[in-house]
Amino acid sequence: MAGMNLHYNRVAGQSVERLAALSDGIFGVGMTLLVLDLRTPASALILSEHGLGHALLGILPQLVMYLMSFITLGLFWVGQQTQINHLVRTDRHLTWLHLGFLFSVTLMPFSTQLLAEFHTYRTALLEYWINIVLLGGALYACWGYATRNGLLKPDGGHEAAAAICRRIQIAQALYALGALLCLFSTAWSIGFIVLVQLNFAIAPTFRRAPAPAAGPP
Amino acid sequence: MAGMNLHYNRVAGQSVERLAALSDGIFGVGMTLLVLDLRTPASALILSEHGLGHALLGILPQLVMYLMSFITLGLFWVGQQTQINHLVRTDRHLTWLHLGFLFSVTLMPFSTQLLAEFHTYRTALLEYWINIVLLGGALYACWGYATRNGLLKPDGGHEAAAAICRRIQIAQALYALGALLCLFSTAWSIGFIVLVQLNFAIAPTFRRAPAPAAGPP
Amino acid sequence: MAGMNLHYNRVAGQSVERLAALSDGIFGVGMTLLVLDLRTPASALILSEHGLGHALLGILPQLVMYLMSFITLGLFWVGQQTQINHLVRTDRHLTWLHLGFLFSVTLMPFSTQLLAEFHTYRTALLEYWINIVLLGGALYACWGYATRNGLLKPDGGHEAAAAICRRIQIAQALYALGALLCLFSTAWSIGFIVLVQLNFAIAPTFRRAPAPAAGPP
Amino acid sequence: MAGMNLHYNRVAGQSVERLAALSDGIFGVGMTLLVLDLRTPASALILSEHGLGHALLGILPQLVMYLMSFITLGLFWVGQQTQINHLVRTDRHLTWLHLGFLFSVTLMPFSTQLLAEFHTYRTALLEYWINIVLLGGALYACWGYATRNGLLKPDGGHEAAAAICRRIQIAQALYALGALLCLFSTAWSIGFIVLVQLNFAIAPTFRRAPAPAAGPP
Repeated sequence: MAGMNLHYNRVAGQSVERLAALSDGIFGVGMTLLVLDLRTPASALILSEHGLGHALLGILPQLVMYLMSFITLGLFWVGQQTQINHLVRTDRHLTWLHLGFLFSVTLMPFSTQLLAEFHTYRTALLEYWINIVLLGGALYACWGYATRNGLLKPDGGHEAAAAICRRIQIAQALYALGALLCLFSTAWSIGFIVLVQLNFAIAPTFRRAPAPAAGPP
Repeated sequence: MAGMNLHYNRVAGQSVERLAALSDGIFGVGMTLLVLDLRTPASALILSEHGLGHALLGILPQLVMYLMSFITLGLFWVGQQTQINHLVRTDRHLTWLHLGFLFSVTLMPFSTQLLAEFHTYRTALLEYWINIVLLGGALYACWGYATRNGLLKPDGGHEAAAAICRRIQIAQALYALGALLCLFSTAWSIGFIVLVQLNFAIAPTFRRAPAPAAGPP
Repeated sequence: MAGMNLHYNRVAGQSVERLAALSDGIFGVGMTLLVLDLRTPASALILSEHGLGHALLGILPQLVMYLMSFITLGLFWVGQQTQINHLVRTDRHLTWLHLGFLFSVTLMPFSTQLLAEFHTYRTALLEYWINIVLLGGALYACWGYATRNGLLKPDGGHEAAAAICRRIQIAQALYALGALLCLFSTAWSIGFIVLVQLNFAIAPTFRRAPAPAAGPP
Repeated sequence: MAGMNLHYNRVAGQSVERLAALSDGIFGVGMTLLVLDLRTPASALILSEHGLGHALLGILPQLVMYLMSFITLGLFWVGQQTQINHLVRTDRHLTWLHLGFLFSVTLMPFSTQLLAEFHTYRTALLEYWINIVLLGGALYACWGYATRNGLLKPDGGHEAAAAICRRIQIAQALYALGALLCLFSTAWSIGFIVLVQLNFAIAPTFRRAPAPAAGPP
């Protein structure tokens, strides 16, 4: 019976691994494709070193946008990874919630390209923000489902659960504030979102819960 | 001799891992490429916020099609993963059956794009359906070969085998029904297939076989 | 000291894993990109169901070419996987030989596209054949280096080594024969290569060496 | 307590694995995309075998550029892999330093394409060189952070740390020298960089530090 159980956990553990592998694949492709739309200037229009330098400087704002989206995907990759590391196993529903999250990841290159091309349009910024809301909402749903259905590893789960929820809520509130700033100007929105993301990426915002008094069984 | 056997299993186990890794890679790329054809509107044609909003609404039906294909690939990814989790090892023939399955996966972006562009054409819908039949047929052949050649893990294999076969048969029957509906209208077909897929993704359609009385050797 | 050795092997083992992971990534992308060039017909030119069916039939020869290249990459993926499964560890030189092999893999979508577009040109067929020679040559060099430098697992290595060498030699001889057939017609060449590949994929051409009398240390 | 620690290491170890998996994904996509810009000649312009051969020869310089970038990415992949193999675990800051490194990896297809198209322009060469500096700088920062914060495996870390730092410094000095050569001609620069890279790829430049006298705890 113990052997049975062990076997079951191993199979389920493998499923978490496969989910992680598919996620890494989709994030890897998505993050690389962001920059794929950065086209080299048409050679017919470039006549001198000066012209090429000028054309490259003209691309710079787009590059900032791609960097912003790379950080966005990086933040959500770290967020999903933290969740997956706490999972003892997955089930079909959780897998599908994560697939929904991954669908939002595949939308990111489109949203980025749209914002890069129409960065003065509120509509483009709102579409970008909706994508971030989808990412955050899906990740929040994943975590809620996993905690409610006992799919977390036994130790430190409760502290981590609360910390992860709080982190997603704060981030989404800040993103919503950033989106609201487009009432003034989309440039303010983009600047604010970049600052929020740099803060999340650089500042030590999430701390691992201290080891509980009782060890794992 | 026991060491020999252990070594053999480890090597063979690694092969299952590599097959899983290649599959995750191909699914990851395929699922991300689906949305790659969602092009941003040409900026020369967009003159106002209203125009951009209108253009994005015009893209919405295509987005639904990409979501449908993402769910299709997700369903078949889960299906293949379930099979691979039950494998104790693979051999060359099974590997090639899975490679055939993966070739059908790489066709999916093309079929999706075709249906998104020609969604009122029965020919496009039939081509999409043939792709699904190829995916299901290959997965069915994989499972049949694995069960006939003793490549499954010893416990719970028989119950799982029957359940997996039944699941593929039911799904393919529903897809065929959906394809038939194009005699009336391709919109009915697409709607029906979306409903079938949401049912498979959301409803708890596949249950793990209960632990057999005797444990594994 | 034994712990040291254990640690070293684990690190080295991880390197084989990473090489395998990078290979699976490159093969996954390459195999999916093959079909990416299969463009949907321009909707402006399609006026009826009949027209769309006709356009899809016109794409069919290209699809066969993509299937041929998918099988080619599949064959070389299985070949590389077999080698990697026999490695006890890798070193920098072997890693770079495998990277050379992987560069040839990334050329395959280009060669395929070239042959699909210029399938009546001997030049295109020769370029395709050169790509296959590069793939086979790199894999042969990888295996030769690994056997000469004691990077193989101790059991069954010698039988496997001979079998793997023979298999690559036979395959390359057949491919060369196929390329020579373009003196008559490129269609004969393509047909012959497809047959060779189907034979390698379907027929049980490679048998695992029987367990040697003495077990591993 | 020991169990707790074991569990913690396993979770942290998984994080290193996930970072490695994402890196392999991004490198895999990036390395395959390099050659994606190698377009087949337009069939309308090719009228004979001679014409096709001529067009392919015309592509050859671009192919050399793609090979150079493939080797660049290969060098940095091996470099990052060596670092990751020495990590006992990662933390958020190190993960973000590696993500910064990976962003530079995703820029490589753009830089390569730019240099392939404008290979006589110093601006293109400087942009390519900046990309290499970003790659080297990020990897250097990763290693510095890991050594300063005790994230390395206990054995042989110090010797390896010094060797890895020295290696990055020498490589970057040579790349800077190569970039400087563009004062004479960009062809000299490209040739020098290719030679440097071949040297790093082929010559046994990095040796694993000998086992220290004391084993690991």
